[in-house]
Amino acid sequence: MKMTSKAVVLLSGGLDSATTLYAAHAQGYQTYCLIFDYGQRHAKEILCAKKLAQVTKSDFKIVKIGLPWGGSALTDKKIALPKNRKNIPNEIPVTYVPARNIIFLSFAASYAEAVGAGAIFIGANAIDYSGYPDCRPSFYEAFAKVMKRGLKTGVSGKMIKIYTPLIRKTKAQIIRMGHKLGVPYELTWSCYAGGKKPCGVCDSCVLRAKGFADV
Amino acid sequence: MKMTSKAVVLLSGGLDSATTLYAAHAQGYQTYCLIFDYGQRHAKEILCAKKLAQVTKSDFKIVKIGLPWGGSALTDKKIALPKNRKNIPNEIPVTYVPARNIIFLSFAASYAEAVGAGAIFIGANAIDYSGYPDCRPSFYEAFAKVMKRGLKTGVSGKMIKIYTPLIRKTKAQIIRMGHKLGVPYELTWSCYAGGKKPCGVCDSCVLRAKGFADV
Repeated sequence: MKMTSKAVVLLSGGLDSATTLYAAHAQGYQTYCLIFDYGQRHAKEILCAKKLAQVTKSDFKIVKIGLPWGGSALTDKKIALPKNRKNIPNEIPVTYVPARNIIFLSFAASYAEAVGAGAIFIGANAIDYSGYPDCRPSFYEAFAKVMKRGLKTGVSGKMIKIYTPLIRKTKAQIIRMGHKLGVPYELTWSCYAGGKKPCGVCDSCVLRAKGFADV
Repeated sequence: MKMTSKAVVLLSGGLDSATTLYAAHAQGYQTYCLIFDYGQRHAKEILCAKKLAQVTKSDFKIVKIGLPWGGSALTDKKIALPKNRKNIPNEIPVTYVPARNIIFLSFAASYAEAVGAGAIFIGANAIDYSGYPDCRPSFYEAFAKVMKRGLKTGVSGKMIKIYTPLIRKTKAQIIRMGHKLGVPYELTWSCYAGGKKPCGVCDSCVLRAKGFADV
């Protein structure tokens, strides 16, 4: 790989995607961060994502998308977030957004093709978030095929590869990897709720706290 | 198929997608039209799409999406549209929007899952628009696999099927099919340019005129 290779990184401002961004950097990629404003409960994580893009001297784009059909506790304040679950069950949670990662990857494919990037990095994880179907490796293999068949880049014989460096890691392993890479975790945001400080009780806060405790 | 089956129809306001909408109706589907506002050169085709949704008593949603990286003559006024081409070459045209159909289908997957639809209809065509890689049948097969693996619906064993009723038809065959189905072509809009009336010289106007002449 050349030092000038370009990669699109899906960046949410959370712990996982921040670690993924630093992993892409460590591999020598010139990074193009893609940040989504999709009606999350608050804008704090978008600000964190922007800051992370800036400190890594990445190009970045913020894409605003509306999903006017609702259906997820992440975008619909009428659906309650689960609280204080010590054992998060292995099922699809209410925070699932229909087709979210498919939508995110489709924009990443467009951005990658527009800037000539040969790689997309996404911080998907099949361990701690095993409830989300679009966090499984087989899903990413299928999406790579869609890009090969549906993009000008793919038809011309070049491939855009999807990298999921965290896919089989526990939260503690991700944090250990991030510490080695120098990820500024103080700039990341995991909480699903809308407060000024992390709520400490949503699934994402619980997983984050457990991760740091297990390091 | 039950008369109450639901289908999401990707509706642009053009001749092809209007015919596709009527084809879905003829098969007895309750239709949910998905209309995109993605910075087309003008809003006329969105108004046509809305009108078509209304006359068919379909539910519909308009999704506004920005692709802030440009790269297509359809969204970037600095790129000139080809004019008066009698023989439109079999190559990827400047009106290609990177990953457009991948993005459109990903929203359709989300909408379908949210409303419980088991089908997505798209007016893709591999004959007249053979230059677009995302209009080929193999692309749709790959996308169906992405939905099977990445959606809650897919994981639960149900499939969302993609229908491309126009994929192997010429423009004249599409129009003949539309006439049988009663498509009000006077409500459709094909022109790529931004005028109040169709320009008559862009590739889309040329293909439309040729289609009606060949019927």
